[in-house]
Amino acid sequence: MTKLFMFEKPQGMRDTLPELYQLKQQIKRGVTQEVTQWGYEFVETPTVEFNETVGSASAILDRQLFKLLDQEGNTLVLRPDMTAPIARIAASTMKASERPLRLTYDAAVFRAQQYEGGRPAEFEQAGVELIGDDSVSADAEVISLMVSSMKAAGIPTYQVAVGHVGFVNALLKEVLGNEKRASEFRRYLYEKNYVGFRKAVEQLPLSSLDKRRLLELLRLKGDASIIERARSITESRAGQKALDQLENLLDVLADFDVEDCLILDLNLVMHMSYYTGVVFEAYSEGLGYPLGGGGRYDQLLGRFHHEEPATGFGLRVDRMTEALGQAKQSVQKDVCVIYSSERRREAFAEAKRLRSEGRSVVIQEISGIANIDAYSKQFDRTAYYVGSNGEGGVKR
Amino acid sequence: MTKLFMFEKPQGMRDTLPELYQLKQQIKRGVTQEVTQWGYEFVETPTVEFNETVGSASAILDRQLFKLLDQEGNTLVLRPDMTAPIARIAASTMKASERPLRLTYDAAVFRAQQYEGGRPAEFEQAGVELIGDDSVSADAEVISLMVSSMKAAGIPTYQVAVGHVGFVNALLKEVLGNEKRASEFRRYLYEKNYVGFRKAVEQLPLSSLDKRRLLELLRLKGDASIIERARSITESRAGQKALDQLENLLDVLADFDVEDCLILDLNLVMHMSYYTGVVFEAYSEGLGYPLGGGGRYDQLLGRFHHEEPATGFGLRVDRMTEALGQAKQSVQKDVCVIYSSERRREAFAEAKRLRSEGRSVVIQEISGIANIDAYSKQFDRTAYYVGSNGEGGVKR
Repeated sequence: MTKLFMFEKPQGMRDTLPELYQLKQQIKRGVTQEVTQWGYEFVETPTVEFNETVGSASAILDRQLFKLLDQEGNTLVLRPDMTAPIARIAASTMKASERPLRLTYDAAVFRAQQYEGGRPAEFEQAGVELIGDDSVSADAEVISLMVSSMKAAGIPTYQVAVGHVGFVNALLKEVLGNEKRASEFRRYLYEKNYVGFRKAVEQLPLSSLDKRRLLELLRLKGDASIIERARSITESRAGQKALDQLENLLDVLADFDVEDCLILDLNLVMHMSYYTGVVFEAYSEGLGYPLGGGGRYDQLLGRFHHEEPATGFGLRVDRMTEALGQAKQSVQKDVCVIYSSERRREAFAEAKRLRSEGRSVVIQEISGIANIDAYSKQFDRTAYYVGSNGEGGVKR
Repeated sequence: MTKLFMFEKPQGMRDTLPELYQLKQQIKRGVTQEVTQWGYEFVETPTVEFNETVGSASAILDRQLFKLLDQEGNTLVLRPDMTAPIARIAASTMKASERPLRLTYDAAVFRAQQYEGGRPAEFEQAGVELIGDDSVSADAEVISLMVSSMKAAGIPTYQVAVGHVGFVNALLKEVLGNEKRASEFRRYLYEKNYVGFRKAVEQLPLSSLDKRRLLELLRLKGDASIIERARSITESRAGQKALDQLENLLDVLADFDVEDCLILDLNLVMHMSYYTGVVFEAYSEGLGYPLGGGGRYDQLLGRFHHEEPATGFGLRVDRMTEALGQAKQSVQKDVCVIYSSERRREAFAEAKRLRSEGRSVVIQEISGIANIDAYSKQFDRTAYYVGSNGEGGVKR
């Protein structure tokens, strides 16, 4: 172990300084107001959970989990997502609450990073879970709410890709016959490694028709017209049903007025293995990775002994901050009242008055400042209450 | 290891359900507005830090630290307080910022609990750090800001005990001669074990005068008049200087108009070993433990290779929530718009309109509800857009 400098932080861990904090707050305020106005209620869950419960349900790679031991020898994890802990709440403390249940959160999640590649090991997610409604309307609601949350956060441009893991799974199963091969192809799709996908298709002992079906999957990206093309390459009931749901979903989304930012993407596969139906991912122009995403996870609650359908989204606050950019940062501080002890009372009264008007006011005894010019330059306005009583406060 | 139920949580870990969340938010909004209006700026630090840096600087008992290993074998800790991480920032990234530096935070901290005794292992602290000002005005400012933060949070009754660890340390050193004994007595004071303190005094080979001096310390609790009594039992320069500072502090606090809720307590000793001067603790009537506290820590920044004076406070959000009680909980939800697919567009338009008026509106397709009466009872108002188009929405 190398000797650490006192100010070092663990890999992937970051500080948020005042300017960035303000920008984050602005984004979070927008999202919070929107999800609250759609009737979602906030919950919080512990940072630390049992590996056996939430850790294993979270479907994050084991090596990405931060693990620790409690005094009884149980393995604990820093929560890697919020969907599994909220499923735990919905299946226990909130088991008796009326369904559908609409919950929201804004919380840090943790994913250990092997290499210093700029990926954060702790990041904040803002999201919702809609539990107990298996209708396509529920899927449409969370997609629309994600869109209006991004809008409320001030994200300048965004697009949402919508797919259906039920369709992908059905097609892969039909063509490949076994789950082992199917999961290999799913991984190519998840990694967006289309070259690998094509190569693997070529090497398989399949009919040329089946090969064409798999290659056609890669091209199923676009507007509603791709649904008909998709129908032509799947014969299974499961595949056709997934496409029926997608068609129905598009109808509801049209009523939500969010078609403009949608694109269908039938090879969208999410990293969370618990997704079972409609899935989606949000992008912003110029950002190399998704702002967030989500989908339907109808089997996760069953892991907590309370089977019910559910869908939700999560947005990454750090990436929204990046998408919003530095534009709105303005860090000039408001007012400073500098005083000496003789005129302290006057200074405090003035600070109180200005604060009651909604201003933000620092009070600072003059003896505590090393360089008055440099110090006061941070503020829009500085008022001086210095020297013997009776003189007016020098202001500038 | 016993087999866990899926919905169990690690010892001392808690969920926050919607009602409690709302109460917490109300408290945090009050504190945030107050500290912001006093010109403090928010920072965030990682949940996970190196044990060698922040862990060891935090002065929390080693067995209370949540520890884990990173892939290089370094020991990491879940931050046990916010003062040490902010000291790290102040001494590194914000080294060049003008002093005094006024920073604030609202963050979860972690202390492992050995027994299930209702003590949380994760709790939220809202606090400030005022860095780079060694004046008594700075101490008075953080005490006053803590008071006005409690007021802004809606805490109905509060009292702040103010002491000075410099006085306690000077007296113990004068009378006991060595640090080992002194720290034994400091522990009795910290644990408020006055019986143990008295017993230990009796058993020491001290003059009866010295014994009286130690026992008198226990009685130094009350208004400004105890300062004179305190002067009579200490001869050291350090002890007298501490009392001068306390007198000076009371003058400034009078100008802040917070004398009413203050009490001097010269045997106040805080658990954080880094405190060096004025210390204080806040209580609320009927609550068996402090709401928060703080004090001066002039040597902590030195551990991060950037010596400078500092003072601050931390308030526990969980305890403020308890002090505020259940009074303000009102959890009736606002509006629900229940629709069937035929009238979806109308329903969405109505929801949009109500939201634009600031209402919180759930939209719910009727097929997703098992029991419509039970479901709609949660809301102040329910509007129905169900059935064939053209009929008016049944409302109640």
